[in-house]
Amino acid sequence: MPKVAAWETEAQDPTGALQAGLQAVEARLASQVESTSGPIKQSARLLLEAGGKRLRPTLVLLAAQFGDPDRRAVEDVAAAIELLHMATLLHDDVVDDAPVRRGAPTARSHWGDQVAMSAGDFLFGRALSLLADLPYPQLHLRLARTIVAISTGELEQLRDLWRTQQGLLRYLRRTRRKTALLIQSACELGAIVAEVPAPQQALLAQYGYALGMAFQITDDLIDMLGATEEAGKPVGNDLRQGNLTLPVLYALWQQPNGWLARAIGARVEIPIADAVKEIDQLGGFAYTLRVALRYQQEAVAAAEALPTGVWQQMLRRIAQDVVGRRQ
Amino acid sequence: MPKVAAWETEAQDPTGALQAGLQAVEARLASQVESTSGPIKQSARLLLEAGGKRLRPTLVLLAAQFGDPDRRAVEDVAAAIELLHMATLLHDDVVDDAPVRRGAPTARSHWGDQVAMSAGDFLFGRALSLLADLPYPQLHLRLARTIVAISTGELEQLRDLWRTQQGLLRYLRRTRRKTALLIQSACELGAIVAEVPAPQQALLAQYGYALGMAFQITDDLIDMLGATEEAGKPVGNDLRQGNLTLPVLYALWQQPNGWLARAIGARVEIPIADAVKEIDQLGGFAYTLRVALRYQQEAVAAAEALPTGVWQQMLRRIAQDVVGRRQ
Repeated sequence: MPKVAAWETEAQDPTGALQAGLQAVEARLASQVESTSGPIKQSARLLLEAGGKRLRPTLVLLAAQFGDPDRRAVEDVAAAIELLHMATLLHDDVVDDAPVRRGAPTARSHWGDQVAMSAGDFLFGRALSLLADLPYPQLHLRLARTIVAISTGELEQLRDLWRTQQGLLRYLRRTRRKTALLIQSACELGAIVAEVPAPQQALLAQYGYALGMAFQITDDLIDMLGATEEAGKPVGNDLRQGNLTLPVLYALWQQPNGWLARAIGARVEIPIADAVKEIDQLGGFAYTLRVALRYQQEAVAAAEALPTGVWQQMLRRIAQDVVGRRQ
Repeated sequence: MPKVAAWETEAQDPTGALQAGLQAVEARLASQVESTSGPIKQSARLLLEAGGKRLRPTLVLLAAQFGDPDRRAVEDVAAAIELLHMATLLHDDVVDDAPVRRGAPTARSHWGDQVAMSAGDFLFGRALSLLADLPYPQLHLRLARTIVAISTGELEQLRDLWRTQQGLLRYLRRTRRKTALLIQSACELGAIVAEVPAPQQALLAQYGYALGMAFQITDDLIDMLGATEEAGKPVGNDLRQGNLTLPVLYALWQQPNGWLARAIGARVEIPIADAVKEIDQLGGFAYTLRVALRYQQEAVAAAEALPTGVWQQMLRRIAQDVVGRRQ
């Protein structure tokens, strides 16, 4: 028997139920961001109002439907995951020297790296507060490991800047840590708090991981191929910062001594149009798309192995849309 | 009955037992810092090897003695609190633009702000991992609130830089958030995990708070009056950064339109010897020392209200030594 009556109507109107859940999460986010200190409120609001797709809270809410969801607890977890994501965005912008995010100037470009860092720490703390009294040790452990992984990923990215000799495994590991594990955690935490049976928990974790990999690899493509207004940030930012993503790495593997490799090795500013043309000719974009599609298929397969129904279809749809998206 | 036989010998050799506990904590710290990524290991080791007094783990171990300590859990909490402290030091150095800490160059001056920030995040995550499976919601809540408070304190410090009109309450609130709450949390978390009875928990919290306030206010005095080699960092760093501490604020209250107020308002670099002379003449150091001593007395009083014995005497001794210390 569901723990809260409001979820009982879901079978009749699942889309409405999901929307209602997301609205409740949004209200929680807004209330968590309120604080007495100006810069926190401003930099967090900047992120809140820029919106974004709320992919992670959606995944928490959907994953929980495969168990026995307690509405309040699930929405707390969904809000906490989004706060954690916002915290990592603030810190990631500092690591990336990013001027723009989701089409708007970043907190660090408004108030400086120090405020962005401290505001990120604040949101970390708020996320943990929301989860503190949930009696699931696995949830706390998963969350802690995700924070360790994300920061390890950031450090690896800093270490690997401008490094022209990088294999596929290094790129994939960095991508897993930087992005995929948090998306996987959204699915897992939703499953844990709703006490989803173990076999479905494993499928949801698999789904989240593959979706997260497809998501980030697509993001790396958008960074090079999207128009600025579509990407929500300047095109070519990764390459400009020396963050070498899969399309670039593939081109370097084809021509380890080509002009692109030499220019990157010398840290020369490369016109993005020239880089795109070279990478395209060497097959870097086609290869990257194939890798993204492989992860997408893995996510779709995991979704299809879940108990059939409307929630499963929603998860499959999200996976189907991830590679074709524009931002 | 104590949960682990090893603690039974404490009554005979409490100092030895405390040392053994701290050694176990040190081993845990070293193992948590190991990771595959170079810069994390290096920046965390830098902090580990610089040592420090291990005040916070000591407080965890001592506070736990007023309950029924499970050795492994208490040592995990002690290590986690120190990891959290190290994480806040890494981030604090970024906020302060600090070149030197504990007599050695800071991580940020070695590897840059971005590495220092991410290494701090990594240690946060490790601290949380150590605590994830402890079944005390109060412990998780207390920790989350402390992280929120510390980051709020950092943001308040950034907001209040160079602000010559600040009252005592604003300074005390910032000090509580920046420093005192983590020291209070060390006492509280040690008490929670050892299931110390509520009245003693309250006394330990009071003790930790007052000790933390006395500690930071003394730190602010050392920053202006200590020799560089004693302070472990350049003297006058706070004032140079625009972080106005109690001695400076007191001088500004006495002469709101004096040369010191005008120089700070104009953000002029002030020779530290001139500032010290002016503050001394206006009574700023004597006043600050009185405030620090008031908190010290509060801490001593709380310690004296605890059940008498060797652990209580150790806590009282720590409080008695806090204001007279040189670094």
